[in-house]
Parts: sequence; structure tokens; C-alpha cells
Amino acid sequence: MIEKLNLTMLTDFYEITMANGYFCSDMADDIAYFDMFFRRIPDEGGYAIMAGLEQLIEYLKGLEFTDEDIEFLKGKNIFDEKFLNYLRDFKFTCDVWAVPEGTPIFPGEPIITVRGPVMQAQFIETMMLLIINHQSLIATKASRIVRAASGRPVMEFGTRRAHGASAAVYGARAAYIGGCAGTACTISDRDHGIPAMGTMAHSWVQMYDDEYEAFKKYAEIYPTNCTLLVDTYNVLKSGVPAAIKVFKEVKPEKMGIRIDSGDITYLTKKARKMLDEAGLKECSIVVSNSLDEYLIRDIISEGACVDSFGVGERLITAGSEPVFGGVYKLSALEKNGKMIPKIKKSENVEKITNPGFKSVFRIFDKDSSRALADIIVLDGETIPEGEEYEIFDPEAVWKRKKIKNFYVRNLREQIFEGGKCVYKCPSIDEIRDYCTQQLDAMWDEMKRFENPQTYYVDLSYNLWKLKHDMIEDL
Amino acid sequence: MIEKLNLTMLTDFYEITMANGYFCSDMADDIAYFDMFFRRIPDEGGYAIMAGLEQLIEYLKGLEFTDEDIEFLKGKNIFDEKFLNYLRDFKFTCDVWAVPEGTPIFPGEPIITVRGPVMQAQFIETMMLLIINHQSLIATKASRIVRAASGRPVMEFGTRRAHGASAAVYGARAAYIGGCAGTACTISDRDHGIPAMGTMAHSWVQMYDDEYEAFKKYAEIYPTNCTLLVDTYNVLKSGVPAAIKVFKEVKPEKMGIRIDSGDITYLTKKARKMLDEAGLKECSIVVSNSLDEYLIRDIISEGACVDSFGVGERLITAGSEPVFGGVYKLSALEKNGKMIPKIKKSENVEKITNPGFKSVFRIFDKDSSRALADIIVLDGETIPEGEEYEIFDPEAVWKRKKIKNFYVRNLREQIFEGGKCVYKCPSIDEIRDYCTQQLDAMWDEMKRFENPQTYYVDLSYNLWKLKHDMIEDL
Repeated sequence: MIEKLNLTMLTDFYEITMANGYFCSDMADDIAYFDMFFRRIPDEGGYAIMAGLEQLIEYLKGLEFTDEDIEFLKGKNIFDEKFLNYLRDFKFTCDVWAVPEGTPIFPGEPIITVRGPVMQAQFIETMMLLIINHQSLIATKASRIVRAASGRPVMEFGTRRAHGASAAVYGARAAYIGGCAGTACTISDRDHGIPAMGTMAHSWVQMYDDEYEAFKKYAEIYPTNCTLLVDTYNVLKSGVPAAIKVFKEVKPEKMGIRIDSGDITYLTKKARKMLDEAGLKECSIVVSNSLDEYLIRDIISEGACVDSFGVGERLITAGSEPVFGGVYKLSALEKNGKMIPKIKKSENVEKITNPGFKSVFRIFDKDSSRALADIIVLDGETIPEGEEYEIFDPEAVWKRKKIKNFYVRNLREQIFEGGKCVYKCPSIDEIRDYCTQQLDAMWDEMKRFENPQTYYVDLSYNLWKLKHDMIEDL
Repeated sequence: MIEKLNLTMLTDFYEITMANGYFCSDMADDIAYFDMFFRRIPDEGGYAIMAGLEQLIEYLKGLEFTDEDIEFLKGKNIFDEKFLNYLRDFKFTCDVWAVPEGTPIFPGEPIITVRGPVMQAQFIETMMLLIINHQSLIATKASRIVRAASGRPVMEFGTRRAHGASAAVYGARAAYIGGCAGTACTISDRDHGIPAMGTMAHSWVQMYDDEYEAFKKYAEIYPTNCTLLVDTYNVLKSGVPAAIKVFKEVKPEKMGIRIDSGDITYLTKKARKMLDEAGLKECSIVVSNSLDEYLIRDIISEGACVDSFGVGERLITAGSEPVFGGVYKLSALEKNGKMIPKIKKSENVEKITNPGFKSVFRIFDKDSSRALADIIVLDGETIPEGEEYEIFDPEAVWKRKKIKNFYVRNLREQIFEGGKCVYKCPSIDEIRDYCTQQLDAMWDEMKRFENPQTYYVDLSYNLWKLKHDMIEDL
């Protein structure tokens, strides 16, 4: 969908005032490095999931100022005429490196790095953050909810509570990456191949004189796969009995009931018993109604008889914490061919940025294939496999650990080279499978909802030394 | 933006399965009435603000299934061939009534009513809820934040944390309706006339060897209106002194400093003193950094010296409660020219719907011009001005109150008649002014953040009686 729109002007106005400023200062072509990273995992979780890269790529490919845009900017009476002409011929020429979608990511890591003329590299900040923050937020939330469901499918049902059309469509995409089985959102199926599914609204039942008639009609029209909404009037007294009657008469190939209100644990136990006693053991029970990972965990632990979950508003808005706080910070400049690392100081130690052009390596234990730590290194540094390597906490350097018998993977891939896309986006199913597989390589201790173990994100000694020296200098 | 896309397929899949179901049951053209209403005001607030109608109208005008859509649906192998042909020639023919944008709205009121063939009236549910829920959520939040700012301008700065592109663009629109002075989002200015504004990022300052040089350059390029970001290194030790030096040298027409971190109360008091002592009393102070209505209220009460606020993630996501729970329920059918009211029962009394085709009147006190109550009535009922009228609490009918000396306004307007739009959307500034004016007609007691007075939304006796009788019957 986004692909069809020119969103070049979806940018903070200050990106344009700064661009004009660089242009007027003869700095437009100064080469700058920017990192996108985030500082906190939403919901105090142990990991986040990278998502949105495909849409970011589409945005970067489509960057173009129209005559209408130029006229609009001209009307502001603050931009240089030559700058506006430059925008007319704008061509994206940056290099971009990024963590592939579906990868577990952690605070402080440069999940995206951009190198290029400062005007361009700065300009793309807003949309990069907008796209990656949104989809990573929802993919991360979905991963938690899917985990809570312990193998039961989770459907994303939140379209009507999403924050506008893109939130619905790309939220469904991100939820699928995070492990959801499908979505209510039809257009996300058409455009992104995410299975759309759904049953009926209460209004279907109300349109008929009684539930039995409404159910019977529906089952006759959809005999291959028929899920009936049983809570319009009274789940146990009328809904389930009517559904049982219809299932026995029509015998759909696949059948299910859906409960969207009331106490899920109580109702599903009772309904399960009624269905089983009627010989309908194969009839599945779908539940919805303001669910999230905590409620799902609790009702499962109470023994609720649920086969799948429909999760709406609390997934599509990441209700408990609806912000993924990714930021985009200058990390280096090139001047006369020389690299000048840059740092942003802060009273808050965690807010001090990591200077320089960097890479991120993920280290895996050879025996268990589990991830041990991520190491942020300066560009060109390697972590030799087969040797012992000492990692240390960058904020408490006396916390040290020697690791051996590991293998190393570069967490990022080059996406753009000189403005040309050099990356082939995987299919949505490949991303989803990759996410599952990469999460399996993470220790369970990091996946708890409360007080998860903190995954190590360390700096190489060289990077740590550079940062330390720059802080001292300031 | 949304106007440029065909979002017909942005709908819950069940809307299509139900549509096919009605088609196959020869019920497609049965006339149904649906109400959109909401049950709770976010943040336990005293009022919400209606927003999004213009985009809903665009969506309804643009409803059209493309050949690609039909092919996609055909591929699902569950839809009747004749139904798919029907979709190919789909034409929206419903009547729609709605509360105009910018109006304070309350739980239980039918803010939109749709009358038409059930297939169509049902089908538009998803996008109606998506659009109105989103924009009303953000307009409501913005209204709270603007109120907290006590007359100081509030800018919407959250583009980068919005849930995708539409959330940024229409969030900015809704925030403006709710009273914000502008947005960071450039495209919202271009397309919707919402003033875009912005200053600089920390990276601008970092690109130069020192703050003074960075500020000087910026002030020279933007001498008419120059706001400098003073917290890249140290607000009071380096940022403000450098800004003062530059302001004195360059003398911009309008000047300001922006503080984006640290303790706002402390820093703005100190900075104000420094600016005043330097003879720069006209220099304004803009603050940002994870603000919301509570923080703004608190720092103002602490005497912070702030001239305007930039509010980001907590506004654009409605961070404290990111869901506006509007729903869409069947309220009546027409059969053989006869109106059959419908009701959805629930264990929870508040969740029982109001049956029938209804209107909403707002009653104003003639002396104070303040709103006294909203009365939901059955279509055709009037509330005669100049007579005494008794209102009563529909859930505690012994709570009664006689009112007189009032005037009455129909809260809703007809938007579509037989599928044709008969409503002229006001301009965004007209909507914003209308919102301010309508809120001024509400008692302050309803505008508190904590425990606001509940505004009366009552039922006419006839409607109450109909509902009561139907509940008894079930």
C-alpha cells in the first residue's frame, strides 16, 4: 500500500530546514554516518523483533519531490531557491546496512546504519523511525502474545482499533512476523499474503429470528469451515446448544465456536464439556475479548479449553506500551577522507551514544547453538572464531567473561550501496520462519514476561576505548 | 492521502463472508440500521472529541471492488459467483447521519447511524470504526493536553513514533482539531493545511565543531524565526550561553530556545533568568521530552517558564490509553415497511444496546449557553423548547430532574442520502474553532483529568420504555 504513495514529504519539517541549512553552508555533501537504535524494550521485555525493513526500502526507493512539493516549500519563504532546485533533482545515494526483519534485537545496537551526504542521511530520519518503530513494536508485542498462547494459534483481529489504515495493514504484517497465524484484515492478505480469516458479527445472529436459524444458514453457506459466534444472547443456555444442533445437522468439515465476552475460563470449560458430550470433540473453541499475553497466560493456567485466540486492540496498538522508542543519531563524519567519530553526551549514562562506524556481531555457542552475546565493534574489527574472546560489561568493566567454542555471525546486511538497493527482501513466510528460528536460539530465561534475564550487548575493547576517551574529552 | 488509495478491501474478512451470506440468503437488500457508539472515554476523561468524518466520507465515496479484488476473493473458493458479480457492480446506496467533527461526544450516543441494505451497511463497519476510533482518540488526547497547557501553544511532534504513515498524517489532523497549534509532519501541512513547524536535531549541533558555530549558522540562515536546540551538551553551561551570544549578534526577528531533556522546571527557570538578564525577554522557551497532560500540568504548577510545548509519542499514540473503543451495532430492521427494533443483550447492563432508529439532541441552558444534557430519542420525537422537560437517569430512573428555559440542537447531520453525499465538510480551521467553541459550552467540572463530573446522556421516555420492554421480552 505504502508503495503506491509518494511519502517523500512525510517528514518532520526540521529535516527540511536542516537540509536547506546544510545546503546553504556548503555542507550538503559532507559524508555523515547515522545509527538507528533503541534504548528500552517495551513492556520490560527481554527482546524485541526487528520489522518494517521492506517498507523502509520501498520508501527509500521512491524518494522524489514533486513540483507540487517544491511549490509548497517555496511558499514558506524560508528556503533557498538553489536548494529547491536541488530537491527537484534529488537522488538518494547513501549506503545502508540493516538487521534483517524477524531478528531478535536489543537496546543500544545499531539496527540500521546510514552513510552518505548529510543532507540525505539526515532527511530520511523521520520515515525510517516511523516505519521501523511501528512494525518492530507490533512484531515484538505479537511475539509475546504468541509465546503466551503456548502453541495455540493467535489471530490478529485488531483492524478496527488500529491507528489508521497503515497501522492496520502493516500492523497485521508485523504481527504475522512476530508469529501470529493470520489477521482479520483482508487487504493484508491481498497485498502481503497474510492469511485473512474471520467468522461473523453479533449482527449476523441478530438479523435472524433466533440463533439456530442464523447458525444453520451460516453453516449451510460455509460447510467446509464454519465457526459460530455463540455469545449474542447467552453462551451456555442458547449459543452452544444451538451450535451443537446445527453442527449435527449440517456436519461442516471443520467446525468451531467463538466466545467474545464473559469469563473465558469458566465458559470454555463448560462449552468444551457440552461439545464433547455431544460427540463434537473436533469442534474447536476460539476466544477473543480484550486479550493480551498476561490474560492468555492466566486463562491457560486456569485450564481454559481454548484452541485458538483472536487478539485485537491490545496487539494492534501494543496497548500496554504503545511506543517503540527507536532514535537516529549522528555517529561519525568523514572530513577530507578522515573518519571523525561523533558522540552525544547526556547526564544519563545510558543515553550517551556509541561513536564511529560500527558493526554488530552475534556470538553463538557451538554446542547449544544458543546466542551468547552481541558485540558492537568498530568497522573492520573481527571476532576470530576458534580463539578465546573476552567480553565485558561496558558500564561495569570489571564484569568480564571469557568465551570459547563459539561461532560468529554479522547481524546486519548491506541494503543500499550508493543509493542502489542491493538486498533482496525475503518473503513474509521466510521472515516469519526466520523469526521463530532465531528466537529458538535465544535462552528461555530472556523470554519471561517479568524480569527477564538481560541479554549481553557489549562493546569491543576498541569501541569502548574510543567512547571512553571521547567522554573524557568532552 | 487516504483519498488516493482504494481501501475497499481494508475490511475485516468477516464483513465479506457475512455479505456473501446475506446475498445467498436473499437478505442482501433487507434494510438495516446500525449505530456507531463508544462505551468509555479514554483516560477516564469527562468528554471525547469527534474526529475523522471527512476521511470516512472519502472512503465511502470511493468504495469500489477492482477486478484484482474479485480475483483475490474468487481464489478463496468460498464465495458465490453471483455474489462476486454483485461486488463488481457494488454501489453504495445507504443513508448516513453523523455528529460533525470537533463536537464533544459521550458514551452511549449514536455518533453515526447508517441505514441501508444490510450487506452494505454491515460492510462499512471496519473502516468506519478504524477511521473514527483513531482520529477521535487523538483529538480527545490533544484536547486534554492543550487544556493542561493553559493557553500556551502545543505542537504535535510525534510523527516518528506514530503507528505508520496514516497514524502520523491523520493523527496530526486530529491533534489540530483537538486544539494543537501545529505539527512536525510536513505532509499534513501540504495536504491538510495544518501548520508544520520544527527547529533542528541534535545532529545539526554535532555537525559543527561547537554549539556557537552551529547556532550562528542556523540563525544566519533563518533570521526571521530562529529556535535553537540548547541541550546537546549542557543546557545551562554551554547551550543557553551560546544561544544568547548568537541572538545578540544575529538579532533574529523571532527567537526561541528548545530544551528536550533534563528537568524542565529547573532548566527553564534558570534559562529564563539567563535570557532575561541578557536582555532577551522576547526569546521564547519551547520544551519537549515525553510530555503529556499530567507532566505539563505539574511543571506549570511548579512555575516552569515555558512558552510552548512540543508533545510527541504520548500524544500521537495516546500513550496512556491507546484505544478508542467505538463499536458498530445493529439497532433495527425494516421488514415489509415495518420497523423492527433490535437489541444486543449482555450480562453487563452498560453493554446492552439502545434499540431502534434514533436521534440525539443536546440541550443548552438559555441563560448560560452551557450544555445541560444529551437526550437520545426515537426518530421523529422532538423536545419542545419553551416547555418544561423531565430528564432521568436510564439506569436509575428515580434520579430525575426537570429543566426549563433551554434550547435544543440536533447533534447530528445527514451525511449521505441514498448513497449520495449531501454534506459539505467544513475546513480544518472551521472544525478546530467549532471544537473550541463547543467545549467552551461544556461545564469546567467535566474537564478535570481526575474524576470529572459525568455529563448526562439520557434516553427519552419512549426509547427507555422500548428498551426496557425488549429486555423483559428476551
